[in-house]
Amino acid sequence: MLPQGFRYAASYAGIRKNKKDDLALIVSDTPAAAAAVFTQNRAAAAPVVLARKNLRASRGKACAILVNAGNANCATRTGDQVAVATVRAAAKALGVRADYILPASTGVIGVEMDGSKIANALPGLVAGLDAGKFNQAAAAILTTDTVLKTAFAEIKGGRTIARIAGMTKGSGMIQPNMATTLGFVVTDARVAPAVLRSALKHAIARSYNRISVDGDTSTNDTVAVLANGVSGIAPSAKAFEAALTEVLESLAQQIARDGEGAKKLVTIYVEGAANEAAAEKIARTIANSPLVKTAIAGADPNWGRILCAAGNAGVAFDPRKADIDIQGVPVCRGGLAADFREDQLKTKLGERDCFIRFAIRGSGRGRARFWTCDFTEDYIRINASYRT
Amino acid sequence: MLPQGFRYAASYAGIRKNKKDDLALIVSDTPAAAAAVFTQNRAAAAPVVLARKNLRASRGKACAILVNAGNANCATRTGDQVAVATVRAAAKALGVRADYILPASTGVIGVEMDGSKIANALPGLVAGLDAGKFNQAAAAILTTDTVLKTAFAEIKGGRTIARIAGMTKGSGMIQPNMATTLGFVVTDARVAPAVLRSALKHAIARSYNRISVDGDTSTNDTVAVLANGVSGIAPSAKAFEAALTEVLESLAQQIARDGEGAKKLVTIYVEGAANEAAAEKIARTIANSPLVKTAIAGADPNWGRILCAAGNAGVAFDPRKADIDIQGVPVCRGGLAADFREDQLKTKLGERDCFIRFAIRGSGRGRARFWTCDFTEDYIRINASYRT
Repeated sequence: MLPQGFRYAASYAGIRKNKKDDLALIVSDTPAAAAAVFTQNRAAAAPVVLARKNLRASRGKACAILVNAGNANCATRTGDQVAVATVRAAAKALGVRADYILPASTGVIGVEMDGSKIANALPGLVAGLDAGKFNQAAAAILTTDTVLKTAFAEIKGGRTIARIAGMTKGSGMIQPNMATTLGFVVTDARVAPAVLRSALKHAIARSYNRISVDGDTSTNDTVAVLANGVSGIAPSAKAFEAALTEVLESLAQQIARDGEGAKKLVTIYVEGAANEAAAEKIARTIANSPLVKTAIAGADPNWGRILCAAGNAGVAFDPRKADIDIQGVPVCRGGLAADFREDQLKTKLGERDCFIRFAIRGSGRGRARFWTCDFTEDYIRINASYRT
Repeated sequence: MLPQGFRYAASYAGIRKNKKDDLALIVSDTPAAAAAVFTQNRAAAAPVVLARKNLRASRGKACAILVNAGNANCATRTGDQVAVATVRAAAKALGVRADYILPASTGVIGVEMDGSKIANALPGLVAGLDAGKFNQAAAAILTTDTVLKTAFAEIKGGRTIARIAGMTKGSGMIQPNMATTLGFVVTDARVAPAVLRSALKHAIARSYNRISVDGDTSTNDTVAVLANGVSGIAPSAKAFEAALTEVLESLAQQIARDGEGAKKLVTIYVEGAANEAAAEKIARTIANSPLVKTAIAGADPNWGRILCAAGNAGVAFDPRKADIDIQGVPVCRGGLAADFREDQLKTKLGERDCFIRFAIRGSGRGRARFWTCDFTEDYIRINASYRT
């Protein structure tokens, strides 16, 4: 079941070459509380700049999210005008204020985007809006993703239920430190804009900011949440944050699992650091190490690379207190090789899910989870020929 | 011509599997001024710890460098004892103080190293010392490197000449921010230990600290310089630093060019940043972007990825003032696509040397050069099966 009071549409506007839906519209029937996080990249794309501006102007309200795939609308001469024009066209077609529209784009950078393609597609898109087209919209925002990425949660409120539904796309240029790539979440819970912003900030910190595919941060990253209150349920800030975190964590894991060329989801769990920030730093450095990621691709339990990566995190720890487990098997104890059957572990590393635990003995209580994927030849193949 | 008063030897001690020299000895006939820089990794290997200690104990003097390939002697139970025992054996065989020996190791992490193999090989190694075996020693320190890496310079002093000769190895786990991998430089110039340290620090900052292959920093990185003064020439600190920088820059470039799986050397030149540190940060972020590196591998002039990477450097700049050139061809002006023939540039990007210029218009005077390599499927292939 989807949240009430939202409708979705998708169509092919001709922005990307291959004929596959490249335009999605997510609409709340009533103005919704809205919050979003955006890329920290200095070269932020035009739709990012405009969405940020609209959210400020509307004081955290929105009616719709307009997304295109195939062109990032970034680093182009006409980027700002195109973003403004398409948002205006959507506002007109929907009969709402322009600052109630949040734009987002994904695709190639530095190629002029033809805004008229979106303007032309909008009447048909609006006519096709339907409460059941959530998956069509989720499919239209994908680029090199190989699977649809959606997640759902419920918040109980007496006899009724508020629902949260999220969609997202990966799958390269992914690095934490902000909302990664595109993610859109709708809920019929009643949440004030300020509470929504705070919940999003906290949920992002432990989901999208805890994944890494290739260490790059895109110019277009956006995660936006709309809460229209149609369910009538006003959950506590804590309950809402927990449910939102559940949805975003699932979406983030799906992104990591479907990283370009990836065959495995790698969960990295660090414990015993001085604090959570230190644990996260270690986990992130392990997750970003090409040598760790290629070893996982090769099903090689090369724990030395994990220890080495941790040693580069810029966090003080005594390597002689480091314990490492791979797939639940102790491979390193006190910084030294543990006694394990390498052939058996190699087989276990052939599975689709890989789990690395890095623990510092008798130290702090800081812990963090982080997700990444293995690093395969396909990543190179995909990215060496992305535009050709 | 090589510096006077140095002898070299290499042999196969049985440390690595394939039967290829894995032990090298570099000896100065008289105690030499010595300086070295080491990995910043928290999990520094036993030979790094011991070499650092010996340099302190000897107050910047050394007679020999003992290097093995095939085993990093890192994260093992017996690492410290093995390092101490092999250094003692070398000191005995050479008849010098133990703290006059600088040890270094490279290879797999976390596998116990059999020190007796080195001790057994030492008498033969010392007997084979020869002033002409520089290249043999340089070959013995290589691991996945595909070519020998050496560099030479001269310092004129009246009618005579002081010489500098360097050898190095790459070729994965390479990230700046310290002396990268192994590098050994010998010179017959007369240089005081303090001057040597200062010159090394400055030369490293613009050579080994300006290259990146995969963003990983090894546990064993060491660059050491011995200056025995045998030429009788005492160059000015400035002249010596310039010559040393020339040698280290050449060695560093050779490492980047021979990065694992690499087919191209990529030189990144950033100018117009507020200062050199900011320029270096931008250059480093471009160099470490897998998306930039895979685009270069695919001969794709995808300047949007370069702009995007620069935007992630954590350096404030206005993307609308960014100019980018690839292979001398303007591809981006003021943050927008320049008018260029993509097919022609694609052909130019097929060459072995790639040059990226990133300039911020009308801004500061900070500039920096940085070297990296392209990122190919072979990198993954090499590293997914390194131990098997």
